[in-house]
Amino acid sequence: MALDTRDRLIRTTSRILRTQGYAATGLNRIMAEAEAPKGSMYFHFPGGKEELAAAAVDNFAGRVTGWLHQRLEENATVREAVLAVLDLYIQDMERTEYRNGCAVATVALDASATHDLLAESTGRALREWVDVLAEAFEAEGRSPEEAHGLATLAVVVFEGVIVMAKGERSTEPIIAAREVMARILA
Amino acid sequence: MALDTRDRLIRTTSRILRTQGYAATGLNRIMAEAEAPKGSMYFHFPGGKEELAAAAVDNFAGRVTGWLHQRLEENATVREAVLAVLDLYIQDMERTEYRNGCAVATVALDASATHDLLAESTGRALREWVDVLAEAFEAEGRSPEEAHGLATLAVVVFEGVIVMAKGERSTEPIIAAREVMARILA
Repeated sequence: MALDTRDRLIRTTSRILRTQGYAATGLNRIMAEAEAPKGSMYFHFPGGKEELAAAAVDNFAGRVTGWLHQRLEENATVREAVLAVLDLYIQDMERTEYRNGCAVATVALDASATHDLLAESTGRALREWVDVLAEAFEAEGRSPEEAHGLATLAVVVFEGVIVMAKGERSTEPIIAAREVMARILA
Repeated sequence: MALDTRDRLIRTTSRILRTQGYAATGLNRIMAEAEAPKGSMYFHFPGGKEELAAAAVDNFAGRVTGWLHQRLEENATVREAVLAVLDLYIQDMERTEYRNGCAVATVALDASATHDLLAESTGRALREWVDVLAEAFEAEGRSPEEAHGLATLAVVVFEGVIVMAKGERSTEPIIAAREVMARILA
């Protein structure tokens, strides 16, 4: 049961952080939505909200990393995997009516500059996603420098199109960026 | 004096929204930091916090648009202007120790999906920035489709690198994305 509560706290926080930043995410809401018993929060996370949010970012990031590996395995080329990610973004934006975003982005924008533990989590997540894609680009014969550059651009685009699609309530920016990326990675 | 208070409310809100989302930005903090007289808030913004935040996003967006036009005028090509924007981001990130971000991005990520007035402001801002750059690309002889695609990619990169730099507390992702953009736009 202890593990379940901890897991529910992490997953609930991760889910909320996909829709808003760290500063707006209160412990009362997390406890209520996670149906966590009183006292369980500081039992599992003695460091409080920051420690819980860092664990939530790590959890979200790990799931995205696994999901990225899947896209790379399912597709014949890194290019196709990157385009598949953008296709899935389009579906997810429509399905959630632009509510869902990236739990790394919201925390990066409002908290990483001022919270060391959160900066470690968001930094680790972003570097890992770049590394996963860079390794795949290298496996296709690109130089380490080119692979790192294109992988960085891909993650930049993954984060940037979320801002654009949510801000415009439209999948058009994802579609336009996808077309350009298809040409760049050809 | 009335105009001054209104302007201070807008500028203070815009400044705060560069560092955190709409949900976390409370009226008490805005009133205090803007040194706004009690009652002035609803006098100038009968629609309350959402109306003020929308005005703040519009104000921020307008200043960025003017600033984008300046970069285009100062540089011989759109490519050089885009690279100059990224150079200035690198300086600004270092100068503000990764605190400053984009007031459109924070609001887009936490509020535009659920607040119509804010979605109008963030959508207008993003579409305007894309249009400014697309027009400049077209003036260099690119087709409307190619111009729109590259302009969208540029704004996607402008938003995405802020997430990356703040999330990693590093300018390295901006530098890496800048190098790739320099090649793409050559």
